[in-house]
Amino acid sequence: MTVNDKIKMLRESMKKHGVNALVIPSSDPHMSEYLPEHWKQRMNFSGFTGSAGTLVVTEDESGLWTDGRYFVQAAKQLEGSEIKLFKMAVKGFPTIPEYLADKLPNKVLGIDGSVTSLQLYKTYEKALSKVNATIRSVPCISECWKDRPAIPETEVYIHDIKFTGLSAAEKISALREKLAEKGAEGMVVSNLTEVIWLLNVRADDVLLNPYVVSFAYVGKSETVWFVNQKRVPAAVVENLKANNVKIMDYDDIIPYINKIKETQKVLVDDSVISFDIYNAVKNNPNLTVVEDIDPIILMKGVKNPTEIENIKYSQVKDGCALVRFQMLLEEKMAKGEKITELDVSDMVLAERAKEKDFVSASFDTIAAYGANAAMMHYKPTEENNTTVQNHGFLLVDNGGHYLDGTTDTTRTYAMGALTDLEKEYYTLVLKSMISMANVVFLEGGTGGSLDIMARNVLWKRGLDYRCGTGHGVGFFGGIHEGPQSLRFGNTVKFVPGMTITDEPGIYEEDLVGIRIENDLLCVEYKETEYGKFLAFEPITYCPIDLTPVIGSMMNNDEIEWLDNYHALTYEKLAPHLTDAQKEWLKKKTAPFTEQVK
Amino acid sequence: MTVNDKIKMLRESMKKHGVNALVIPSSDPHMSEYLPEHWKQRMNFSGFTGSAGTLVVTEDESGLWTDGRYFVQAAKQLEGSEIKLFKMAVKGFPTIPEYLADKLPNKVLGIDGSVTSLQLYKTYEKALSKVNATIRSVPCISECWKDRPAIPETEVYIHDIKFTGLSAAEKISALREKLAEKGAEGMVVSNLTEVIWLLNVRADDVLLNPYVVSFAYVGKSETVWFVNQKRVPAAVVENLKANNVKIMDYDDIIPYINKIKETQKVLVDDSVISFDIYNAVKNNPNLTVVEDIDPIILMKGVKNPTEIENIKYSQVKDGCALVRFQMLLEEKMAKGEKITELDVSDMVLAERAKEKDFVSASFDTIAAYGANAAMMHYKPTEENNTTVQNHGFLLVDNGGHYLDGTTDTTRTYAMGALTDLEKEYYTLVLKSMISMANVVFLEGGTGGSLDIMARNVLWKRGLDYRCGTGHGVGFFGGIHEGPQSLRFGNTVKFVPGMTITDEPGIYEEDLVGIRIENDLLCVEYKETEYGKFLAFEPITYCPIDLTPVIGSMMNNDEIEWLDNYHALTYEKLAPHLTDAQKEWLKKKTAPFTEQVK
Repeated sequence: MTVNDKIKMLRESMKKHGVNALVIPSSDPHMSEYLPEHWKQRMNFSGFTGSAGTLVVTEDESGLWTDGRYFVQAAKQLEGSEIKLFKMAVKGFPTIPEYLADKLPNKVLGIDGSVTSLQLYKTYEKALSKVNATIRSVPCISECWKDRPAIPETEVYIHDIKFTGLSAAEKISALREKLAEKGAEGMVVSNLTEVIWLLNVRADDVLLNPYVVSFAYVGKSETVWFVNQKRVPAAVVENLKANNVKIMDYDDIIPYINKIKETQKVLVDDSVISFDIYNAVKNNPNLTVVEDIDPIILMKGVKNPTEIENIKYSQVKDGCALVRFQMLLEEKMAKGEKITELDVSDMVLAERAKEKDFVSASFDTIAAYGANAAMMHYKPTEENNTTVQNHGFLLVDNGGHYLDGTTDTTRTYAMGALTDLEKEYYTLVLKSMISMANVVFLEGGTGGSLDIMARNVLWKRGLDYRCGTGHGVGFFGGIHEGPQSLRFGNTVKFVPGMTITDEPGIYEEDLVGIRIENDLLCVEYKETEYGKFLAFEPITYCPIDLTPVIGSMMNNDEIEWLDNYHALTYEKLAPHLTDAQKEWLKKKTAPFTEQVK
Repeated sequence: MTVNDKIKMLRESMKKHGVNALVIPSSDPHMSEYLPEHWKQRMNFSGFTGSAGTLVVTEDESGLWTDGRYFVQAAKQLEGSEIKLFKMAVKGFPTIPEYLADKLPNKVLGIDGSVTSLQLYKTYEKALSKVNATIRSVPCISECWKDRPAIPETEVYIHDIKFTGLSAAEKISALREKLAEKGAEGMVVSNLTEVIWLLNVRADDVLLNPYVVSFAYVGKSETVWFVNQKRVPAAVVENLKANNVKIMDYDDIIPYINKIKETQKVLVDDSVISFDIYNAVKNNPNLTVVEDIDPIILMKGVKNPTEIENIKYSQVKDGCALVRFQMLLEEKMAKGEKITELDVSDMVLAERAKEKDFVSASFDTIAAYGANAAMMHYKPTEENNTTVQNHGFLLVDNGGHYLDGTTDTTRTYAMGALTDLEKEYYTLVLKSMISMANVVFLEGGTGGSLDIMARNVLWKRGLDYRCGTGHGVGFFGGIHEGPQSLRFGNTVKFVPGMTITDEPGIYEEDLVGIRIENDLLCVEYKETEYGKFLAFEPITYCPIDLTPVIGSMMNNDEIEWLDNYHALTYEKLAPHLTDAQKEWLKKKTAPFTEQVK
């Protein structure tokens, strides 16, 4: 079937369901960052494979909206189809709500309410109410998608309390307290990072993400987990029973909500809940909607003491793997062996896989040599796989999921001779990374208020990076988990126990890409008459290449931070290393003044 | 009449007007920062003289709400009266809306709508609507205030276009464009800083503030200035006529609004407009209210090229005055003459007064010796007037209004021997000030995002200052004029042409107070592929005492900034100085490494 055939079929279904247009978004019932194949409906119906985009089909036109990263790719992939490309944030192109308002006066918009967030529904509703148009949730996507992949059902297992520190029952009880603070007694837990955290369950449903496609309902007097029951082993059922969690099938979520008899106030966060589930809550007269911010996001954003201890141990293992990787890389390069970017990816994965409780990479390794590293999210492929040379930089952004933690580290290695500009840029990125890592701030500080600490170093040279400075990381969960992030506008207050990446960079197209990334843990610093001060402790233990550094550009406090960091790295890793590895690491972590003249 | 007598009288008036409680705020019809005596009603009826506070009188109780700065003073001044002290932001004390909601179910609150902002009205309305209480604007204050001082009526003069750069007609035309962008055609201009800026008029109505108590109405087809006409000389009338501005009496504002016949949309900013004027607009069927942010605040916050040139010249004059002051201070101290803090205030005023186009001090000089400087807003009086010793620090925060600009400068002078702690604190404050002055930021940067640049230096030592880092300054206007400010939470984007003070400090009770303050001008820095970068240019030209500086604590870029700053200061001032002054200044502005060993 061609894309045009599929759209024709959609139009027939639309007609049957009485809607004049249909929006097909890139989302699933859990508002996930990474979509299982089952919910790649926008890709299926448009042929466009990028990660972000929305397809809109009307009775006589269809359009795909996507952002600047994908204009070239989308134009190519839409060729030969009837679908027009609408460039987001480009003058002359309407937004989707504008487009719909223009096309649908007095008509009906169809959405798939199972994969449309309440928040997104509201933006359509706002635009369409002005032109007297209505919105209806319709099953056109499932009706017209013939060879739709199944919902994933990998085997579920319990994430042991020795890793998580708290049982599911304890987490549910803490959640009920948070709900009470917001005047609510119940909540639908939709987001997969939240379900697996709350119930201490894991599986392998989404590539490189240990998720279980499921919902939970934490109610006034019972907690139910909605998951395909045949994939849940008896031991898991037992564990959850012991935590007072009932299990029902994945598809039971809406019928269950429809039938709740006990009156209760149900918290709804419009950015996380789907329109269909929201409607089920709203239409049950026993339930009262309380719109507020999902409390689980902050709860799991602050790691508990057991999690912190575990994370630090997973980071030690990760550091040992990266020591072995770097030694091997140096050895192979010295021998003149051919190493490609894909080889580098394989090497870091192989070294991590040797570590205890390793599960998988935590994201696709970015191994980028030379100018390739200027593409922030570059990933080598069989077709595009550069050989590492003995000059310039090799950037490796990589991490692992362990049962005891998720890591995310970037190092940029000097492979030999460097240009003056490469040295200068490397030194600037290092200063920028240290400036954030070394910050002390009064309680109340947010990612938005701290962000400038890293950027200012680059801004003085007219440089910047077109992304955040850092993001939160899940605990054997998502690689990007908030609510905290180091980026302009983030208003979440840092709290001891939050972890965050610190990863400024310089990316000059066709020339160079440099990024240095440590994971940081927010800790108490000191309390004085002015209040409680917080700071960051580095929890990535991996030497930072000092060979590219221009010593005269470094301040004393930056050098002091580096020396402390390298001493910490040696102290943490040495007990787990061989003598040869220790000797190697001793050199790599030697005081700044010994390494940089 | 005692305070209790006055309150009794208020209660009779309240009864007559059918209200069960009355709120008496510290505000005037213009929502001014500094109140003319005519509007110090809260002080009159309560006896409490602090700058901030609200009196609430009910049928059987009266209370004064004020903040932590005034708890001691208020308790003392309320003694012997029936008024209870309500401590703001202290647990156990209700807020005013909470108190009113508790006292007034099904009753009526009286406010003086002429001095109550629409915003404040809304907060009362929100609290009272829950208890079925209503609000009425009543004239109790004016009825019961027997010896009320008259509204000021100092002579008005035109602020010449050679200073302002733009005529009133040009500013009004620019305002109409801004109004059109917001879908409005008219606006009541209430705030005095805005009226004098818009119409290029000045007088001397408020101590150390060149205001004219008046309103303006910029309408669809005419502009009217509401001011006591007998205080407006013929030349001013002529000038305004030439700018198409009609003049009516101060009290005509509401009758005028009531009678507007031409239909028009009127912009209302609830933080600036009084409840009474808002009602006049709302109740005229020819007018439609458009609630939005007052556009004048931003317009006058960005200085035009003529204003910038003038400001710089006024700063040169101010710098020359401060050179003469400091030389005189050194001379007198060397001779062993007795100098008190009040003498210092007199000296800076006398030196400024010698400069061309000087009008007045721009605020009460803070001359604080030793531990006195730990009180951020200390002001010496005849009773409290410390003699300057030949050790420790003298802090002088002072500025002037000139026809060509308003200045605000703080220097902390080492008077002789210093303790190690004094030196360390001084160095930290200097680093903090430079860190902000030296920042480069991408367009879009706000005071909220920049604030940490100054504070971070102190936070590392567990220190902080309990105020903003800096504020905007008017152009021969208010000493505090926004919308920009350097403080947590400020979301106004910096724009080239904005000026801001940079004044971090360390204040340790009973020990030491240090502040170093420069005025800065936001300027374009460079434009690259990453966007437009902005930076700050120092526009205060006054040497910074380097004798207290601990050299080893300073980084190279900080030293470079200081050397550039001192070179600029010498370059700017030297042409206006005598040979002896030049020689003195040459030493004070010598390179860092020559001054600090």
